[in-house]
Amino acid sequence: MPLSPDQIAEIDAARATPRQTLRAVSEGMEAHLYRAQEVLDHGFIRVIDYMGDDAAIVQAARVSYGAGTKHVSNDEGLIRYLMRHWHSTPFEMCEIKLHVKLPVFVARQWIRHRTANVNEYSARYSILDREFYIPAPDQLAAQSTVNNQGRGAVLQGEEAARVLEILKRDAGQAFDSYESMLSQEGQQGLARELARMNLPMNTYTQWYWKTDLHNLFHFLRLRADAHAQYEIRVYAEAIAACVKDWVPLAFAAFEDYRMGGVTLSAKAIDCVKRMLNGEKVTQETSGMSKGEWREFQVVLG
Amino acid sequence: MPLSPDQIAEIDAARATPRQTLRAVSEGMEAHLYRAQEVLDHGFIRVIDYMGDDAAIVQAARVSYGAGTKHVSNDEGLIRYLMRHWHSTPFEMCEIKLHVKLPVFVARQWIRHRTANVNEYSARYSILDREFYIPAPDQLAAQSTVNNQGRGAVLQGEEAARVLEILKRDAGQAFDSYESMLSQEGQQGLARELARMNLPMNTYTQWYWKTDLHNLFHFLRLRADAHAQYEIRVYAEAIAACVKDWVPLAFAAFEDYRMGGVTLSAKAIDCVKRMLNGEKVTQETSGMSKGEWREFQVVLG
Amino acid sequence: MPLSPDQIAEIDAARATPRQTLRAVSEGMEAHLYRAQEVLDHGFIRVIDYMGDDAAIVQAARVSYGAGTKHVSNDEGLIRYLMRHWHSTPFEMCEIKLHVKLPVFVARQWIRHRTANVNEYSARYSILDREFYIPAPDQLAAQSTVNNQGRGAVLQGEEAARVLEILKRDAGQAFDSYESMLSQEGQQGLARELARMNLPMNTYTQWYWKTDLHNLFHFLRLRADAHAQYEIRVYAEAIAACVKDWVPLAFAAFEDYRMGGVTLSAKAIDCVKRMLNGEKVTQETSGMSKGEWREFQVVLG
Amino acid sequence: MPLSPDQIAEIDAARATPRQTLRAVSEGMEAHLYRAQEVLDHGFIRVIDYMGDDAAIVQAARVSYGAGTKHVSNDEGLIRYLMRHWHSTPFEMCEIKLHVKLPVFVARQWIRHRTANVNEYSARYSILDREFYIPAPDQLAAQSTVNNQGRGAVLQGEEAARVLEILKRDAGQAFDSYESMLSQEGQQGLARELARMNLPMNTYTQWYWKTDLHNLFHFLRLRADAHAQYEIRVYAEAIAACVKDWVPLAFAAFEDYRMGGVTLSAKAIDCVKRMLNGEKVTQETSGMSKGEWREFQVVLG
Repeated sequence: MPLSPDQIAEIDAARATPRQTLRAVSEGMEAHLYRAQEVLDHGFIRVIDYMGDDAAIVQAARVSYGAGTKHVSNDEGLIRYLMRHWHSTPFEMCEIKLHVKLPVFVARQWIRHRTANVNEYSARYSILDREFYIPAPDQLAAQSTVNNQGRGAVLQGEEAARVLEILKRDAGQAFDSYESMLSQEGQQGLARELARMNLPMNTYTQWYWKTDLHNLFHFLRLRADAHAQYEIRVYAEAIAACVKDWVPLAFAAFEDYRMGGVTLSAKAIDCVKRMLNGEKVTQETSGMSKGEWREFQVVLG
Repeated sequence: MPLSPDQIAEIDAARATPRQTLRAVSEGMEAHLYRAQEVLDHGFIRVIDYMGDDAAIVQAARVSYGAGTKHVSNDEGLIRYLMRHWHSTPFEMCEIKLHVKLPVFVARQWIRHRTANVNEYSARYSILDREFYIPAPDQLAAQSTVNNQGRGAVLQGEEAARVLEILKRDAGQAFDSYESMLSQEGQQGLARELARMNLPMNTYTQWYWKTDLHNLFHFLRLRADAHAQYEIRVYAEAIAACVKDWVPLAFAAFEDYRMGGVTLSAKAIDCVKRMLNGEKVTQETSGMSKGEWREFQVVLG
Repeated sequence: MPLSPDQIAEIDAARATPRQTLRAVSEGMEAHLYRAQEVLDHGFIRVIDYMGDDAAIVQAARVSYGAGTKHVSNDEGLIRYLMRHWHSTPFEMCEIKLHVKLPVFVARQWIRHRTANVNEYSARYSILDREFYIPAPDQLAAQSTVNNQGRGAVLQGEEAARVLEILKRDAGQAFDSYESMLSQEGQQGLARELARMNLPMNTYTQWYWKTDLHNLFHFLRLRADAHAQYEIRVYAEAIAACVKDWVPLAFAAFEDYRMGGVTLSAKAIDCVKRMLNGEKVTQETSGMSKGEWREFQVVLG
Repeated sequence: MPLSPDQIAEIDAARATPRQTLRAVSEGMEAHLYRAQEVLDHGFIRVIDYMGDDAAIVQAARVSYGAGTKHVSNDEGLIRYLMRHWHSTPFEMCEIKLHVKLPVFVARQWIRHRTANVNEYSARYSILDREFYIPAPDQLAAQSTVNNQGRGAVLQGEEAARVLEILKRDAGQAFDSYESMLSQEGQQGLARELARMNLPMNTYTQWYWKTDLHNLFHFLRLRADAHAQYEIRVYAEAIAACVKDWVPLAFAAFEDYRMGGVTLSAKAIDCVKRMLNGEKVTQETSGMSKGEWREFQVVLG
């Protein structure tokens, strides 16, 4: 369990005292506030704050004086229209702030999404905890033989056991060394900003991360995708579950047009037209490369 | 008065129904929510939503599990430290959303602040109202004779009257033409996206504008400054008054270190040291250009 | 013609003195450098500088020590792969700087693309020229009757003549007033920062605009699109022609996957599969709204 | 030495073939192109490309048709004026692209500068080299006793030796494990995207990093500063040396106004005035906290 009793008490305290506000409120999100959703072996995501709801998207799109439209069905139609036609600015009018605990190698992928605000726990200033990500056995995968950048089958038997042992041993030894270099008992003690370099990249870090809904959707499209590395995908999925409760109409449009949607090239759409006209199209007559054709076949199921 | 009775009714309705939330609440900001603060002759700013408060800045800086520190005095010290040492990320953890009505030439300056989300009323889609900014007599200023980019004395007598008359006449005629070109009575009616080009740049537009506190402070430092054009400065000042009620500790630090602060060059700080040592420093011995020396003298009062 | 003899002389001078460099050079782009391509009646785009070429995209994707791959065919395959899989960072490694002269209402759309660097001619500091955009007769379109945000048929006969006359008259009068208010003969002269507000939004302004290739592609996808307003589309098309000469491989991939590509929703791709299986799908059985179905029909030609 | 003979040959080849260009050329920068400047024990920076020079800053500020001003002295005065008055957009008109090899813990600080384009070597896709940062003895510092976030005295004797030994041993073992987990001899071989998590944060990575001059100056101000961690400061200093050769006028202004400049709070500037008036000001009468007063004393030398 990633939280200490003190931390749980702080979260309970934060949830114990509702206050009045005149702002837009999303009941679905209020239920999530502050609570930690566990991810991987020691990580979590917690929603710390949010701004706006489905109606706020509509209100911004209309630059309106009051709330959104009177009817949910109108809101839904407009939201779907905005999503379909890539009108991104109304979605930027909603904002979310998360507290995330995650392994450093996941944080390094995550931070590549630049349009966000980040405050990370500082290992120059503070001493890190002895916590490392060790994959569950069903995630201990071999290198893919078809994709340079992916996983293949799960490791079996002795090899799996050996890898788990190595990961635990090296992380443990690295942390022992970290503590012993930092120690000021009988020695000066190495600077924290230097000692941290000995820790492996499965060490857990944490940060506050804040972004708007448009950029969050972009993050989810890339990171909740089957091609994303499993260890960041599970974070994206946990966030997606919160977003669904926060802005259900926007999330449904996102699922239909982005997550479930497909971009076809000019060549691919031409092939579809020819096929609908009864032509038998092959890779050779498609104008596509082998790789493209393979991906096209996947799209058409 | 910039708002119609319908609009006022919508705002009153939005303020009439407080709801419960577990999020951080700023009482000072709740009092502002939705209400229009008038700016210039037909403009306004309205706070539509906000995220966070002073404690949220502290909480983010500490990547903490609960609220900020227990004592306001500690929060204040930390916030001042963060501001002094340019630790900007904790301030990015607060967000504000405004509805602004403003002349187009002001909007064109404003939009240069890129780190913000904007949704503007579309004159491709909708027809604009007959509303123009006409300066009040005490703002009808002559070109500065010392600063290419500023104002000098207020225009007097006949010239002032003539200018006001011209501005009103041309704006009125432009809008008459706009309406007559759009009209579909007895003619096809020009496309809205074309007709709008006839309107002058003192026409009012409106938008939803959302940004984080760090970038808002940057905006206020440049636009609430004495060198900013009066017509954008009054918007910045109206926003600053809200921010003061929203995050009083952060705003006080901002006033001390940014608005009231001064950046001295290496040469200028060297001169200060020499002067404190009793040396009589002149422009010639300062190493500064005449322009720099003049600005330096202003700083030293 | 938008350029004065002095300006043409400056451009000729800039093109007269080639120098040596060790940087990546795009011959296609060198031919464009500094030259003005006319757009609309008084506008232009000029390429002022560029960084990188097709090989630089490959080189960045590989984080390589030398140039790109040895074979153009390899470069092409990799570039197409990167484009297809939304790997945007290698495209960000190319940069372009343009000098653009454009009407203010076009500039207001353009500036909404935030990930760019902009330096605009200041009408606070300088006096603008008497130049306005007046649409050519074949672009003088009526409001669309099916699309709130678009154009319909071209205006005919008397109405067209009347509109052109109005646009010229009002612009002319606005500029006369601008000059007369600025004048310091026998009067103080209104401040430039105020006088400019009397000018209409078809007044020409100009700026230096710099962006990276990824963001430029995004701009071109939205603004060289059939749904974009004609007056910005012609700028996008002029830029696209330069980009094609600059990075031909990347541009070809962009045309195939983005400009000519289509995004289908989960529902739409499901319909395609059903249709390829021989099912007769109608709007009622498609799960799509009428608007979506109409757009889907357009995609399938 | 961080480069292999093959890599050196590629760099020599890139420098061997100058080409003609009509673009702005900075002779100072041409001398640096492609060459690796060593940083730390295995790192480097290499300038891969650049756009613009001092004259390009002036040209952009003037939105001019030709080159900058005719006289270098005018360019210098304008550049200093722009820097002094925080007119940042003309500096954004220059761009630089670097190839950097750096330890992961340095990369994690560096990436926090979001306004840049980055392409990092992928350890999901490729296998990393056996290279770790091991501090030189004079950089093996103890934790500061006065600053939670800094270094104190250099470690002495046995403790220093022990720390070096630990760092080398743990890194070596981690890399041995990495290789053994990846190996496909007699086993499946762990996926690269997983195996990398065992490596410590002093492992070297590399990236292409591209940014504009304004944002680069911001980076240098924070990272070439005495408060920055030594391991990132040496990179910033190596970059600064290139920038000085690239845009000497802009760099001189940056040094005077930013690197050597000081921001004084409203309270501090008030104290300076009182002191210049002959008043004896103490911390108690200054209105500053103890921390602020201490920093103020440092400024005044």
